[in-house]
Amino acid sequence: MTTKVKTIDVTMVRIYLTEAEKMIDTVLKRLHDWEKVRGVTVFRGISGFGRSGNMHSSKLLDMSLNLPVVIEFFDEPDKVDSIVEHLAGMIEPGHIVSWAARLQVEA
Amino acid sequence: MTTKVKTIDVTMVRIYLTEAEKMIDTVLKRLHDWEKVRGVTVFRGISGFGRSGNMHSSKLLDMSLNLPVVIEFFDEPDKVDSIVEHLAGMIEPGHIVSWAARLQVEA
Amino acid sequence: MTTKVKTIDVTMVRIYLTEAEKMIDTVLKRLHDWEKVRGVTVFRGISGFGRSGNMHSSKLLDMSLNLPVVIEFFDEPDKVDSIVEHLAGMIEPGHIVSWAARLQVEA
Repeated sequence: MTTKVKTIDVTMVRIYLTEAEKMIDTVLKRLHDWEKVRGVTVFRGISGFGRSGNMHSSKLLDMSLNLPVVIEFFDEPDKVDSIVEHLAGMIEPGHIVSWAARLQVEA
Repeated sequence: MTTKVKTIDVTMVRIYLTEAEKMIDTVLKRLHDWEKVRGVTVFRGISGFGRSGNMHSSKLLDMSLNLPVVIEFFDEPDKVDSIVEHLAGMIEPGHIVSWAARLQVEA
Repeated sequence: MTTKVKTIDVTMVRIYLTEAEKMIDTVLKRLHDWEKVRGVTVFRGISGFGRSGNMHSSKLLDMSLNLPVVIEFFDEPDKVDSIVEHLAGMIEPGHIVSWAARLQVEA
């Protein structure tokens, strides 16, 4: 089977939150309903720390877990620029990372 | 301990699937047996949505889970180009993202 | 709510280990206590393989699991260069990947 493919430029975005921030659903809903991004994936880390220096680990007995969560998405560069600007009011500075990538699409 | 290191160019690849697609093992087997890539890691997301707009979330009671899964690998740029071309027949367009990176190797 | 944002250059790093290597806590402690990186997230994969070609999968009954683990962090490019050099003595070559990205910060 041969499928003709070409690549288009996209911007990858990773947003670093923790479960305790309660922002995950708000951000997801915004990306889904309003920004209509191509696709979003949410990952839970098993450990980590942020600028506070506090470790967030699933090994702790404390079940009110505050594990790291990453919201990842990609879309066209201009669209991502607007989305990130919109998110700036919702998410603390220093938590949104982005970089240029290529997406395989149908030729 | 000092270890001499240098970096080589690699291409990072992330392939976005869902558990329900049953493609994970096929893609892994291909990358392992045939393409002989340097290394592959598979991650399961806890939530997400694709172009369909349907949310895939581990919070749903529905245990016939259809969570997002990401297959990640990296290798030399030319090799990755061929691999991605080979995968194009197996994976829907719009699901393979790649970008340039550097790998630490022995000098 | 409008928040003025600008971006600064950062380097993203992903370090590929397995649970059996017992290096995770050592690397995390070093990044936390010594290198004082901005933030670190640790992810556990559900399957994968490295250069050995051995599959590491959570489907195996074998509970002495050896699942893939990724330690991810980002920081300013110069700082990351030093950190990666320091880590070179602790981590086998071929397991540290990095790339250029941008971080949203307060303007």
